[in-house]
Amino acid sequence: MDAILVNATVATMEPGGPAYGLLGDGAVAIRGGRVEAVGERGAVGGGLPERDMGGRLITPALIDCHTHLVFGGDRAREFEMRLEGASYEEVARAGGGIVSTVRATRGASEAELLATALRRADALIAEGVATLEIKSGYGLDRETELRVLRVARAVGRERAVRVKTTFLGAHATPDGLDPDAYIDEVCIPTLRAAAAEGLVDAVDAFCEGIAFSVAQVARVFAAARELGLPVKIHSEQLSNLGGTAMAARDFAALSADHLEYLDDDGVAAMAAAGTVAVMLPGAYYALRETQAPPVAALRAAGVPMAVATDCNPGTSPLTSLLLAMNMACTCFRMTPEEVLAGTTREAARALGLTDAGRIAPGLRADLAVWDVAHPAELAYRMGFNPLAERIIGSDGQ
Amino acid sequence: MDAILVNATVATMEPGGPAYGLLGDGAVAIRGGRVEAVGERGAVGGGLPERDMGGRLITPALIDCHTHLVFGGDRAREFEMRLEGASYEEVARAGGGIVSTVRATRGASEAELLATALRRADALIAEGVATLEIKSGYGLDRETELRVLRVARAVGRERAVRVKTTFLGAHATPDGLDPDAYIDEVCIPTLRAAAAEGLVDAVDAFCEGIAFSVAQVARVFAAARELGLPVKIHSEQLSNLGGTAMAARDFAALSADHLEYLDDDGVAAMAAAGTVAVMLPGAYYALRETQAPPVAALRAAGVPMAVATDCNPGTSPLTSLLLAMNMACTCFRMTPEEVLAGTTREAARALGLTDAGRIAPGLRADLAVWDVAHPAELAYRMGFNPLAERIIGSDGQ
Ligand SMILES: [Zn+2]
Ligand SMILES: [Zn+2]
Repeated sequence: MDAILVNATVATMEPGGPAYGLLGDGAVAIRGGRVEAVGERGAVGGGLPERDMGGRLITPALIDCHTHLVFGGDRAREFEMRLEGASYEEVARAGGGIVSTVRATRGASEAELLATALRRADALIAEGVATLEIKSGYGLDRETELRVLRVARAVGRERAVRVKTTFLGAHATPDGLDPDAYIDEVCIPTLRAAAAEGLVDAVDAFCEGIAFSVAQVARVFAAARELGLPVKIHSEQLSNLGGTAMAARDFAALSADHLEYLDDDGVAAMAAAGTVAVMLPGAYYALRETQAPPVAALRAAGVPMAVATDCNPGTSPLTSLLLAMNMACTCFRMTPEEVLAGTTREAARALGLTDAGRIAPGLRADLAVWDVAHPAELAYRMGFNPLAERIIGSDGQ
Repeated sequence: MDAILVNATVATMEPGGPAYGLLGDGAVAIRGGRVEAVGERGAVGGGLPERDMGGRLITPALIDCHTHLVFGGDRAREFEMRLEGASYEEVARAGGGIVSTVRATRGASEAELLATALRRADALIAEGVATLEIKSGYGLDRETELRVLRVARAVGRERAVRVKTTFLGAHATPDGLDPDAYIDEVCIPTLRAAAAEGLVDAVDAFCEGIAFSVAQVARVFAAARELGLPVKIHSEQLSNLGGTAMAARDFAALSADHLEYLDDDGVAAMAAAGTVAVMLPGAYYALRETQAPPVAALRAAGVPMAVATDCNPGTSPLTSLLLAMNMACTCFRMTPEEVLAGTTREAARALGLTDAGRIAPGLRADLAVWDVAHPAELAYRMGFNPLAERIIGSDGQ
């Protein structure tokens, strides 16, 4: 629908100008699914029908740049057992932990996985999300990893949302396998198969004592490089292994995610490489962590910061990006402007996208229209969805 | 609609039996807005049309027993200023704090207050809330306190939700007044006027160093007693003044709310009086408190525990009771069963209601129907609303 949106506050999220790139009486001209022009009302030319936005706030549509949205089962009983005082061993004996999600995911059909993923995607979409990253990593065998990635692609066909897929075969080692053997004999061959099928937009790995070493992750990333795929990393969440610095320096990673234990060397490596720091406060909150990521150091070094849900059944069963924004303010002391940039401009960057995340000429007209007076309200409220409308652009041409 | 609901898991929340009072293949017979019978499917007699619930979970409709839902303005800019590093003094100089909400509430018309309150009420209703407590306390003068209570009553007329009103004139001292003078010359006379208009179901007070002393609160409660009104108290949130024990011992308070600093004497007084402990994790989370209420001691003493949103613009801009349940589990280590009891059975008790909060013969047929397999899922997820349907009963007759 080609139109000029008028009578709106517009948060362009363009850096370098006023906070939020805010236009008090702004207008956005849309043609062919792209933003044709944006500016103060008088400065955006005519030739298109005007649409009165009733004084609402327009922002770029939101981007959730880190989710594990496709999985089987849930972990509600495990959540309950822990709160009833069960030990980790008792939970494991009762079949809990990531292995329970792997088992449920392997046992679920493509249709079953799609149905549950769509419910979660719909919750995100209802809050203005137009681009969504989805990782594999609950299959841990070739067949299931490919199935999960196909389901992720199907989410993007079934809903008006752009899905970017990330291969996360290096999420955990399946029962009974040696981690090195799993990486070389299952994970990397599966990555090649998935890439050959066009199912992979980026490659991720979980670098942690309970997951994979820096050297193991580097082998996966080397395979990604051969395939021409960008990389991302789950790193420094529970301890400081140095995975972030490796991913930034050796592979120019798009993003490093979690980062609670990131040190100054990691911050410097990210700044030099332009790697985005993806903040995942849902997991921090749910795990009752007390060490927050070094937000002040990242800010001082000019490292771009994104915010995402990390939607997953174990450590962050979160399907509200607005709540993730509130948590990033409350728990990590990011500002409302930073967290909105973190779910728009910087989230796009974390996915390697240059056509979304800001309101600027030539970019996709993916917009969110909100019933709020000021963009700070988006992060301030908890459990409230002021979305009035989502406008979805296109790739143009 | 008289019917027997069949093919459902029913969490009756009746104590003394299985967890959640759970019936695996349950049925609920509804006649005249009341529950006529509930039990295993075969045990609930016929005579009514059957309605297939598709295997969904039925619980009592939710009850939010502590909100400050009616107010003017918001505090998003204050939230932002604090995160940008402003001191409390700078925020106050910029017009922030509770005085800003009092100013905005006094300046808002009844229609304006109703419109914004309805948006918040709608968010709660969308999650299955059928009973809602609303406090005054942002007027702090006779005219505005009465206006806020009238708006609270109007919420109950405009929506299919039962509103219980609470007079909280003793919330703060308005600028320029002496606290004792405010209590005796404004607060208590306003309470009498509001009660004479039928606007008051209960009386509350904020007992804290930054608010009112135990003696001041006791004067308000004595006036409530003269009027035949039950009392509730905001107490031991930031320090231990002993307000809880006073309210329980001297006034058999329906509830004491917050309770982060409650001591053993307070726990014992609550247990002896049957006073409900209302947990407000939204404020705990938003204020980044580190001392949780003494849940284990309350549990051991048999004090009933409720959970509520505390929806307010300053310390808990929260309009999701499901999220409050998750926070009570995550931050306070309550169990999923306790938090569901806390938003049904015990929330009813905190409001002095005997006709709601459980699914039992004779009670109102206020039910919530959920697309989940197990009630633990309600507290486990964050930012997800699995409500399929809300069924609203009536007062019968
Ligand atoms: Zn993750
Ligand atoms: Zn309160």
